[in-house]
Amino acid sequence: MLTHPTFIPVGTLGSVKSLTPQDLKNIGVEIFFSNTYHLYLQPGEKTVKKMGGLHKFSGWNGKIITDSGGFQVFSLGKNKGKQGRLIKITEEGVEFRSHLDGSLHFLTPEKSISIQHDLGANYLIAFDECVPYPSSQRYTKEALGRTHRWAKRSLAHHQKLNKNQKKKQAIYGVVQGGYYKNLRQLSADFISSLDFDGLAIGGVSVGEPKNKMREAVSWALPTLLKTKKPIHLLGVGEIDDLFDFFEAGVTSMDCTIPTRLGRSGHFFYRSKNQKEDLKNRFHQDITKARFQKDSQPLDPNCSCPVCKNHSRAYLRHLFKSHELLSYRLLSYHNLHFIISLVGEIRKTIDTPQKFKSLKSSWLGR
Amino acid sequence: MLTHPTFIPVGTLGSVKSLTPQDLKNIGVEIFFSNTYHLYLQPGEKTVKKMGGLHKFSGWNGKIITDSGGFQVFSLGKNKGKQGRLIKITEEGVEFRSHLDGSLHFLTPEKSISIQHDLGANYLIAFDECVPYPSSQRYTKEALGRTHRWAKRSLAHHQKLNKNQKKKQAIYGVVQGGYYKNLRQLSADFISSLDFDGLAIGGVSVGEPKNKMREAVSWALPTLLKTKKPIHLLGVGEIDDLFDFFEAGVTSMDCTIPTRLGRSGHFFYRSKNQKEDLKNRFHQDITKARFQKDSQPLDPNCSCPVCKNHSRAYLRHLFKSHELLSYRLLSYHNLHFIISLVGEIRKTIDTPQKFKSLKSSWLGR
Repeated sequence: MLTHPTFIPVGTLGSVKSLTPQDLKNIGVEIFFSNTYHLYLQPGEKTVKKMGGLHKFSGWNGKIITDSGGFQVFSLGKNKGKQGRLIKITEEGVEFRSHLDGSLHFLTPEKSISIQHDLGANYLIAFDECVPYPSSQRYTKEALGRTHRWAKRSLAHHQKLNKNQKKKQAIYGVVQGGYYKNLRQLSADFISSLDFDGLAIGGVSVGEPKNKMREAVSWALPTLLKTKKPIHLLGVGEIDDLFDFFEAGVTSMDCTIPTRLGRSGHFFYRSKNQKEDLKNRFHQDITKARFQKDSQPLDPNCSCPVCKNHSRAYLRHLFKSHELLSYRLLSYHNLHFIISLVGEIRKTIDTPQKFKSLKSSWLGR
Repeated sequence: MLTHPTFIPVGTLGSVKSLTPQDLKNIGVEIFFSNTYHLYLQPGEKTVKKMGGLHKFSGWNGKIITDSGGFQVFSLGKNKGKQGRLIKITEEGVEFRSHLDGSLHFLTPEKSISIQHDLGANYLIAFDECVPYPSSQRYTKEALGRTHRWAKRSLAHHQKLNKNQKKKQAIYGVVQGGYYKNLRQLSADFISSLDFDGLAIGGVSVGEPKNKMREAVSWALPTLLKTKKPIHLLGVGEIDDLFDFFEAGVTSMDCTIPTRLGRSGHFFYRSKNQKEDLKNRFHQDITKARFQKDSQPLDPNCSCPVCKNHSRAYLRHLFKSHELLSYRLLSYHNLHFIISLVGEIRKTIDTPQKFKSLKSSWLGR
């Protein structure tokens, strides 16, 4: 299973946007996160299977984790489409329309697990329902009941498929329960009691305030930690999150932030002004006028090839000119920055004094 | 000066689209072509100069050639804008509006050369007027007279600037004359008679039929060859062009084809079916359904890392999903394909029998 702590970049369609598998290896990435919903719609899990599975298809010989598709079905389906609401939830599963062509699809726990087995990731995630924020306690409870029944069905189907295949896959159950302490605790108890290989915490980043998210995680974590199983936090990964959740015992987090920020012209950077850095969440906007003739690398303390070879002025020029190279170079640097930081966290995480000192040098607390 | 033969990819804004300087080096690129018009508008030649010149700014320690800006001024300005026609030509120079923000600019031979000196490329090109195709003989003759007077002004200004700088730059004169044999020959005579370091043939690729382009080159070439100076053919570089023009004595060509094709989902490929290859100009459309489950590399005979690590099926999936990585990988392969081919041509160009055999194996003639 994964080493504590691990940061997992997102490669939705089997590619961490703009970067090659060799880039990921050079950066020190061990695993990326792919989205079942997207790969099911294109190129289709059967195509990926025919091509030898997602590792071979994408040319990546590190590890891969796939999600269940649930999060995307619910987050892309929460708006009304031309044909009415885009999703319909029943006990059996979820009917939804493709965001690509409006075609109708039906996803069940068994279907999600089968797709994930076809994709062939090292780690799968059980099918769950993510409720929007805010949702009533009544609805959240109803959805949670379904998520728990779907967890059992996901696990059973996974075990059946795993038995018949040579390359064994591991499965994570998902704790849900919205922003209700009793439901989160109930969910943590229930999911912990099942025979999952790992435990994930879901539904904590769909537009809710950050303090809410942290609270929801804190309600579930103590129970999950007792199992000694790896714990994955879904869709979280700002710098303060990395320190706080890894410290709290979370094993891994996946997040689009490094590459998404890169594509929007932001770069990670640590100055000598901690207050400013915290305010900026350790990133800067490359389009700022002050970078126009700035010959410094993005981050003078960074050892990545982008910082070795290019100035802020050049990257600003490329980004402002919509040059493809800018998205690639900014994504590379940002991912390198986060993976390096998590490397430092990993080195100190078992020595509380050293960890506290590292954390305080970044966060001032 | 440049080795015969040399293929020059285009890096309009100081970046060969989607590729890093290290990629170019790995591919075997020796020089890229940048556009004065674009760099003058953004980030501005003064910014580039402040940052140490285009080599340092872009992180490229190979060679660079810049054009005069003339071609872009005329090709981007041939349509009417909101404020009327986008360009106004006088003896002194050309008034034009920026394609970015509509702002008014005035480019003269002296200004173009000064900008190119600020950019600091190894090779500059004299400022010229490109007439659209078709143009009347009367107008083409008038424009050619201006181009010749501008050539002398460009050269004089370049010599003045070169005298005062440590790092000497070399300048190419440009033969124009549209599709009129007498004018092309007149221009070849005149440009050859001036003290340029190299001679370029211009205005042969602005939407004219291919046989016209070839004719126009053939009218100028004999005179240029007599000078023994390097000859550059502007904006040409399909595979048959590479064979025919390098054979005819052209030293170098620049062309956007490899990277532009890549960004539009086309990849260079040589099959065993020469007739098909010629019909397809040696490239294929990756979106074709037959590549959906094709586990072969783009070109099974190619040694580039894209072909080593990825299948057509994966590249098709990336391109169809609008993944940034597809533009990068297809551009890399295409440029590698062309640079490798020109490498083979270079090896045989001085041994006519070997060259003929190589050419015939590709073109069947």
